[in-house]
Amino acid sequence: MIKTDILIIGAGPTGLFTVFEAGLLKLKCHLIDALPQPGGQCSEIYPKKPIYDIPAYPEILAGDLTEKLLEQGKQFEPGFTLGERAETIEKQEDGTFIVTTNKGTKHHAPVVAIAGGLGSFEPRKPQISNIQAYEDRGVEYMIKDPELYRDKKVVIAGGGDSALDWSIFLADVAKEVTLVHRRNEFRGALDSVEKVQDLKNQGKINLITPAEVVGLSGEGKLEAVSIKLNSEAEPFDLACDHFVPLFGLSPKLGPMANWGLEIEKNAIKVNNALDYQTNIPGVFAIGDVNTYPGKLKLILCGFHEATLMCQAAYQIINPGKRYVLKYTTVSGIDGFDGSRKEAPKAVVKAIE
Amino acid sequence: MIKTDILIIGAGPTGLFTVFEAGLLKLKCHLIDALPQPGGQCSEIYPKKPIYDIPAYPEILAGDLTEKLLEQGKQFEPGFTLGERAETIEKQEDGTFIVTTNKGTKHHAPVVAIAGGLGSFEPRKPQISNIQAYEDRGVEYMIKDPELYRDKKVVIAGGGDSALDWSIFLADVAKEVTLVHRRNEFRGALDSVEKVQDLKNQGKINLITPAEVVGLSGEGKLEAVSIKLNSEAEPFDLACDHFVPLFGLSPKLGPMANWGLEIEKNAIKVNNALDYQTNIPGVFAIGDVNTYPGKLKLILCGFHEATLMCQAAYQIINPGKRYVLKYTTVSGIDGFDGSRKEAPKAVVKAIE
Ligand SMILES: Cc1cc2nc3c(=O)[nH]c(=O)nc-3n(C[C@H](O)[C@H](O)[C@H](O)COP(=O)(O)OP(=O)(O)OC[C@H]3O[C@@H](n4cnc5c(N)ncnc54)[C@H](O)[C@@H]3O)c2cc1C
Ligand SMILES: Cc1cc2nc3c(=O)[nH]c(=O)nc-3n(C[C@H](O)[C@H](O)[C@H](O)COP(=O)(O)OP(=O)(O)OC[C@H]3O[C@@H](n4cnc5c(N)ncnc54)[C@H](O)[C@@H]3O)c2cc1C
Repeated sequence: MIKTDILIIGAGPTGLFTVFEAGLLKLKCHLIDALPQPGGQCSEIYPKKPIYDIPAYPEILAGDLTEKLLEQGKQFEPGFTLGERAETIEKQEDGTFIVTTNKGTKHHAPVVAIAGGLGSFEPRKPQISNIQAYEDRGVEYMIKDPELYRDKKVVIAGGGDSALDWSIFLADVAKEVTLVHRRNEFRGALDSVEKVQDLKNQGKINLITPAEVVGLSGEGKLEAVSIKLNSEAEPFDLACDHFVPLFGLSPKLGPMANWGLEIEKNAIKVNNALDYQTNIPGVFAIGDVNTYPGKLKLILCGFHEATLMCQAAYQIINPGKRYVLKYTTVSGIDGFDGSRKEAPKAVVKAIE
Repeated sequence: MIKTDILIIGAGPTGLFTVFEAGLLKLKCHLIDALPQPGGQCSEIYPKKPIYDIPAYPEILAGDLTEKLLEQGKQFEPGFTLGERAETIEKQEDGTFIVTTNKGTKHHAPVVAIAGGLGSFEPRKPQISNIQAYEDRGVEYMIKDPELYRDKKVVIAGGGDSALDWSIFLADVAKEVTLVHRRNEFRGALDSVEKVQDLKNQGKINLITPAEVVGLSGEGKLEAVSIKLNSEAEPFDLACDHFVPLFGLSPKLGPMANWGLEIEKNAIKVNNALDYQTNIPGVFAIGDVNTYPGKLKLILCGFHEATLMCQAAYQIINPGKRYVLKYTTVSGIDGFDGSRKEAPKAVVKAIE
């Protein structure tokens, strides 16, 4: 059982900044995310694109924003449960919560902050009748650990940035990379498309287009995919250890819709006049996942909501204790890892 | 008469970010500030100190934050009335407002956003009976334009960073700089104290301590100050063109307290459940200047409040027009100066 002060569901920008604000109040955080990496939409959908409306950043790449937020919070040593979806929540008699993931990992905390964005990202799966039988036996819908593919034969399907970028990356890791796409045209960053073209010319990536993977076979684990070229009637078999269809992820509010929370327009209603608490005391919703009159689904709004929410969490965790706001500039920052940041003090010194 | 869409009172971080958010909605802003430079508390009180809780900035100097905010908003070409205090507000029959400063400058706008922080910064004045007679005739409480002092004899009084830093700066501009302080000890950044010591050793700054300026004289304009050394009973006269007492600025809600706004704890009450509007429709209060349940006087909160406020301003200025939120990443930014920023588009390209 993982224990923490604030259990955060969703490691997007809102969840990551919560770690920092909670840390200022000496509260510890643990984050659960269905994706294998932190950053939410920013790292999953548009890591290489610039955002122009992060305050005081005239321009920042979404991937760099994620890095900065991780760096800002790291001295508060957040825990992570990645690649798992929060599935159930149970309120204990003492008012605390136990949240369990689809893989059975249990988390225990007095406060739950749902920072789930548009929901957990679930992969779009190809229509292959027996695909479920091979899930985690050679079929993966996202790449969590590239080392799994070392010296293996990998077939990737898809025509977007993920398919391009992972093909490039695995070209150096896997024994053989085959990229299958139902068109000749790929849609992605110019340099990714050009890089795949180069690797194909060098014979480091096999490209099969326009074509589709239509079948899977193997005893107990994947041994071959069946590929149908648009131009030919009959599919052919290609031996492989892994098949990774990268057809995009679509967010689903999913299990949280059944937690007894008030839902409106596919988002969780909160009290924006006070602390972004939901109808379940002790459960907050911040960032894209919440709704209230005038709500804007913007990153900078999640930062504010997280900050106010942490104050309320502090009250729940330290009942009756008065918290006096301190400026970081004036008080500095004491990390849970023993680090200290502080502004150089003014000197009082005679001039002679 | 200066005309604009949103008239912002206060050019601190909140006011500056409002320019950007308003610009995204094609609304133009003009800012009034009592200080001679933008940045509010950040540039007046602690420009060289680090802030640690600006989201995605593990550390940023308050002065750099101001620069970044100015840069982010500059393509929306804000107007500035600096060194003047907003004194009165009059609601017109058509619902628009006219705001007049202490110097008589008039501003006309359909929406007023008060981002006045702790109030307008007013200088602490020394107790010298006839000082008022010399104000703007040789006595200034803040330095707006250093060129005023070129080749002049200047007496600066004070023992903090402003007195130290301006003495250093004017040593190269003025004919003669004399720094008077009632103690031998100065309180400021170490390098400023050391620099003044150097300039004194080189004879570029006259230092008179411990001492006080106790009198002023001159016909129609300042011609000499009378200085009393702690160690001697009788003051002596020193000829000069300017006397600049830099004893700090203290913020005063001041004239805005009489505008008919609901005030609580020296701050302006707003509707935080919606759009940070005050009890006067069309007048908003954002950033440190406002109060509501759970209010935190933090920079990042001002950013969020400014953003939501701009949406409400848009509705007032474009009644009945529906606004659809667009991501800056997706739509790019069109400056009022004709500039355009946009993310590189994905390409659709065949791989052969
Ligand atoms: C193309 C694009 C461009 C954008 N441009 C801008 C812009 O310019 N400016 C701007 O401010 N915003 C922009 N946005 C929106 C911005 O990305 C979101 O506002 C922001 O990501 C919200 O952050 P969040 O942390 O609230 O949620 P998210 O980033 O959505 O993160 C939520 C995380 O929670 C996880 N999660 C959800 N439910 C569960 C569960 N049950 N179990 C485990 N994990 C779960 C998800 O997997 C996800 O990782 C853009 C969005 C897109 C798609
Ligand atoms: C030493 C110190 C350290 C701090 N550290 C931090 C920190 O680490 N993190 C953090 O988030 N915050 C910190 N703060 C607080 C932060 O500076 C404020 O929250 C922020 O400046 C508020 O911004 P604002 O734009 O709302 O108001 P302000 O910065 O106060 O600006 C308001 C402006 O309005 C002007 N004004 C007011 N009334 C009038 C009028 N009638 N006419 C004309 N002009 C007027 C004033 O002159 C002023 O320039 C710190 C503050 C101090 C003093």
